[in-house]
Amino acid sequence: MTRWEPNARERLAQAALDLYAERGFEQTTVAEIAKRAGLTERTFFRHFTDKREVLFSGGTELQEHMVSGVLHAPADAAPMEAVAAGLAAGGEVLEERRAFAQKRAAVIAASAELQERELIKLASLATALAQALRRRGVAEPAASLTAQAGIAVFHVAFARWVGDGHELALPEVIRDSLDELRAVTAGPR
Amino acid sequence: MTRWEPNARERLAQAALDLYAERGFEQTTVAEIAKRAGLTERTFFRHFTDKREVLFSGGTELQEHMVSGVLHAPADAAPMEAVAAGLAAGGEVLEERRAFAQKRAAVIAASAELQERELIKLASLATALAQALRRRGVAEPAASLTAQAGIAVFHVAFARWVGDGHELALPEVIRDSLDELRAVTAGPR
Repeated sequence: MTRWEPNARERLAQAALDLYAERGFEQTTVAEIAKRAGLTERTFFRHFTDKREVLFSGGTELQEHMVSGVLHAPADAAPMEAVAAGLAAGGEVLEERRAFAQKRAAVIAASAELQERELIKLASLATALAQALRRRGVAEPAASLTAQAGIAVFHVAFARWVGDGHELALPEVIRDSLDELRAVTAGPR
Repeated sequence: MTRWEPNARERLAQAALDLYAERGFEQTTVAEIAKRAGLTERTFFRHFTDKREVLFSGGTELQEHMVSGVLHAPADAAPMEAVAAGLAAGGEVLEERRAFAQKRAAVIAASAELQERELIKLASLATALAQALRRRGVAEPAASLTAQAGIAVFHVAFARWVGDGHELALPEVIRDSLDELRAVTAGPR
């Protein structure tokens, strides 16, 4: 039997993020995270496999929202419209956790290893969106191109949102960036 | 004094690639590579820092060609046209080494670690193209968006080229993929 700890996962995640921001990701130990959260290391390992997972476990939920957004776009939506719906759904998830997401982004920007991990997660997102488009009947290479261009938009929009003075909501920045992509690709050949 | 070995670098690279394809990247040792090339391990380490560098050292040259293509595009070229010129220049480099590039792609596809490294290299390419666009006076976020969308095109085109039955030249596949990107982004909002 283990003692039930209210909100243990959230407390651990917040303590970890605070410590990563204060001391750096590499310099923080699981023991310190558990202590800051007022919990035990054992509790930490019931919720996360390692230090890094605290930063990346949210990616699964983000991907689910994006994929669901693509799949539930109107049946007659063009591929890029369906991707836009997926990106907007993902943007809403992050906007709801603005403080956490932006602090997390700063921690990741400070570590080459974490940046690499983030790039790999973005590539997985693109693969998942391409698969969702194929389920909508979009053929290759249009499905992969649309998904990868969509993730390029998401990547750039996310960086703008993080660098922004808390003015704009992420779904809005994504929409603007998608309009910019249309503008730059529509140019002369 | 070290003995001069004609084409040592090329012989080592080809021997390494052949062994990675035959036995897998992880299973191949530097000693085996040197032996296959008829050279010593010491010669290997004069040319490459490790096994992985054999696969990724060409990326520098590819990046230089792409950046140069962007910078030397006509002054009045739109951002995406300049990126298209850069991608075409990179595509020509790979097309000239078709056999090596395609065998290399198969080796990378067989290893999760190498795939991650390849993704990171693609992200560096996008960063370099965005910087080249800024040197042409393109503002942000248009520079990053165009560069990342361009790399999305390159990524998809490269996969088609590798999977293709040796019919199409890479610069041609890149051009087609860029047209597809225009088509998918031009759709209704």
